[in-house]
Amino acid sequence: MILQPRSVFAIITLACLFSPLSAALGQGADWSEQDLAAAAALRDKALAGTRAFEHVGSLVTEVGPRSAGSAGDAAAVRWALNRLGSLGFSHVHTQDVLVPHWVRGTAEVSIVAPFPQTLVSLALGGSIGTVADGIEAQVVRATSLEALSTMSPASIKDKIVFIDERMQRARDGSGYSATVRNRGMGASVAANLGAVAIVIRSVGTSDERIAHTGSVRYSTDAPRIPAFSISNPDADVLARQVQAGKPVRVRVKSTARELPPAWSANVIGEIPGRDRAQEIVVLGAHLDSWDPGYGAIDDGAGVAIVTEAARLISKLDRQPSRTIRVVLFANEEFGTSGAREYLRLAGDDVSKHVLAMEADLGTGPVWRLQSRVAPDALPAIASMQSVLAPLNIAPGDNNGSPGSDVHPLMDAGVPILDLSLDATNYFDVHHTVNDTLAKVDAKSLDQSVAAFAVAAYLAATKQGDFGRVTAEPAKN
Amino acid sequence: MILQPRSVFAIITLACLFSPLSAALGQGADWSEQDLAAAAALRDKALAGTRAFEHVGSLVTEVGPRSAGSAGDAAAVRWALNRLGSLGFSHVHTQDVLVPHWVRGTAEVSIVAPFPQTLVSLALGGSIGTVADGIEAQVVRATSLEALSTMSPASIKDKIVFIDERMQRARDGSGYSATVRNRGMGASVAANLGAVAIVIRSVGTSDERIAHTGSVRYSTDAPRIPAFSISNPDADVLARQVQAGKPVRVRVKSTARELPPAWSANVIGEIPGRDRAQEIVVLGAHLDSWDPGYGAIDDGAGVAIVTEAARLISKLDRQPSRTIRVVLFANEEFGTSGAREYLRLAGDDVSKHVLAMEADLGTGPVWRLQSRVAPDALPAIASMQSVLAPLNIAPGDNNGSPGSDVHPLMDAGVPILDLSLDATNYFDVHHTVNDTLAKVDAKSLDQSVAAFAVAAYLAATKQGDFGRVTAEPAKN
Repeated sequence: MILQPRSVFAIITLACLFSPLSAALGQGADWSEQDLAAAAALRDKALAGTRAFEHVGSLVTEVGPRSAGSAGDAAAVRWALNRLGSLGFSHVHTQDVLVPHWVRGTAEVSIVAPFPQTLVSLALGGSIGTVADGIEAQVVRATSLEALSTMSPASIKDKIVFIDERMQRARDGSGYSATVRNRGMGASVAANLGAVAIVIRSVGTSDERIAHTGSVRYSTDAPRIPAFSISNPDADVLARQVQAGKPVRVRVKSTARELPPAWSANVIGEIPGRDRAQEIVVLGAHLDSWDPGYGAIDDGAGVAIVTEAARLISKLDRQPSRTIRVVLFANEEFGTSGAREYLRLAGDDVSKHVLAMEADLGTGPVWRLQSRVAPDALPAIASMQSVLAPLNIAPGDNNGSPGSDVHPLMDAGVPILDLSLDATNYFDVHHTVNDTLAKVDAKSLDQSVAAFAVAAYLAATKQGDFGRVTAEPAKN
Repeated sequence: MILQPRSVFAIITLACLFSPLSAALGQGADWSEQDLAAAAALRDKALAGTRAFEHVGSLVTEVGPRSAGSAGDAAAVRWALNRLGSLGFSHVHTQDVLVPHWVRGTAEVSIVAPFPQTLVSLALGGSIGTVADGIEAQVVRATSLEALSTMSPASIKDKIVFIDERMQRARDGSGYSATVRNRGMGASVAANLGAVAIVIRSVGTSDERIAHTGSVRYSTDAPRIPAFSISNPDADVLARQVQAGKPVRVRVKSTARELPPAWSANVIGEIPGRDRAQEIVVLGAHLDSWDPGYGAIDDGAGVAIVTEAARLISKLDRQPSRTIRVVLFANEEFGTSGAREYLRLAGDDVSKHVLAMEADLGTGPVWRLQSRVAPDALPAIASMQSVLAPLNIAPGDNNGSPGSDVHPLMDAGVPILDLSLDATNYFDVHHTVNDTLAKVDAKSLDQSVAAFAVAAYLAATKQGDFGRVTAEPAKN
């Protein structure tokens, strides 16, 4: 934009309405009154309605499922380039990322005896397939991974293990961390005890008859066995048959397999900074999804939130001082390949990353502001929260969780903000066929855009930085 | 039960607590005070807890899907014989019924262009299959069957018709009657306009990604074309693509086919009447289910409600005057074969059927009492409602709807009661994979048992009968 004399006058006039800049920028001030006012206006504008739903609707309708390495994944990269380009982002480009290419094939889990039933199932992501005829064996039920760990190899050998632990619903998603290890580690624990396959109760809160997938992580020190999830109602039926006391035989079958790695890409677009453009605030989300659903909430919603937050900032008369970089990461779901490649390519430039945040827990609303910043920056976080408070966003602590895709940046010392999206209903839908546009609430999405826009704007205009943080190992 | 002197004394004493029998049985009295008190006690006992959930849980766990002619159908007949027998019913027997045997096979509905997507679909019950490679054609969207009917053959010829009408939620299920014709008649209307296949938005209220099946009824004057449903979220995606203006091509494929008819059976058990045992009160439900789900709400719930209502009556010290006959009908879903065979076998004995009622709209609660009885019997219906009122059951009119399985009896003059089960959420689940035990609310089921037990008891003890009703043609 070329400033016309009239615009310059308008800006000067506007500046004079607030307290003198010299005072706002005085000792310890993180933001000018002007910047704080701009952040509040941005918040209110977003809350009044954004284009976020339009973004996720377009991604769902024109791309849909997009697991790493699939045709949908490639279509998503094209979609993202077009979308960021047409929205006026600068420096829109890709970073090539080599991703694993697992294909689901078919899955079948059925009870053979005493009462035959076909169960709604999915192979867990990365599971090996079975032999062509499938595997039939007696089921051994364990109520948790811990319970399984204490069982004798004699009781497990040549059996199919059924981990029957129900995930609990919680706003902070804590029920997921408590049970996701069944999915990640169950197969190898069972295999080391001699099991021939594993079936887990879906790690999800829904009573719909829908299985939840997600990645299995085979240990290098255990045989690889096929791994499946079954829906909660089907797990109920299997449990009822087991608990009735007769031996229960189950048959599992899958053509899941791993193909050679494929190329995908991180897609990046920027809102260039005004005078400290080399300093970066990262807004992340992931472009891939699991294959059964449309990837509307995981992570179409996140893509829409960060894209729209940055777009709204780009429309301000006065751009923030630092560059806001939207990074739509490749393959979060099956090994965070894109996040690791982003860090590798950043190299020494990681030091120019002032702050990172990510949207990857659904549509929101955001209910809490957590952080991981240097202690000196905590007063700035408190100021930020006071601008977010009208959105019903509560203060949190400085022990926030980064999303999977900004975790590597945090481990490299980059401070992070954790704008906690309300996950109460997220795990009804996450990693299922049911991840559709019908589950996206446009109003919640707008509130989340408002929160991310405010946080990004303030991070990109703050006088000082947020320090550096101490690395910690990635969570399981 | 052999009455001991002590019991006889107890009954006489009890009778004396109420107004003299002579008064209660006086002019116009339908029930003795004793019978009304017994009905109220029965109501309160059921409301305090029944075994209905146990019945449906057993059917779901030990049988599950049981579409006409399938192995599950045969297992359901055995289950019902065992269950009625073990619960102490009298004269437990079957009536052989020849049923159509349609098998679903595979179904695939996918968008080929402009944006490829695989949609969650089911073949409609009775649909023919496609050629092995499937059928690919451009889609023409119609917003209703009426809209389709007015379209020109030139615009439909060689196309795939997509009827995109959303069913509305209502307690009385009226949204279903308004849209089910898309499923029943859409294929023939489309075929007569030259369509090569039809895809309908599921006739259901759920936003889960689950397609709703149910029977298609081919007209004899139209070519048979393959018919599919897609889930509501998938219909949203297809509609969004069509509305974007580019031609949308869809591919459908199915191995659905009809096998030779198979034998199934109505399963019948009775609570014999005390002194008018030849007079029958029918409590009906259907034993079959559509194949994708467990058949918990459709109609495991109905089976449980009528079975448990009759069982509770059988435990009373004093049996009702008339016989209560539980009829678990074969193949309601795909042509009401069992109901028609029941009527045929009844022959002249249909005149001994004093009243019929059916539970086939989920778990309840019952919210209204409707009827179709002779006008003279309306005061008795009002008395009945007053016993039901503490269950929050409102009075209705005398234009009630029989269930599909008692409709033939009504057409033959048998009065019916329509204990309206609350259908607000029923069509979220009806005819889907999602019809599971998780959708059965035990408390609602108990209330429904209470209502059916009271109604059956009063019908079986009423002094006079309910007259006869005028036949009317079966509803579409």
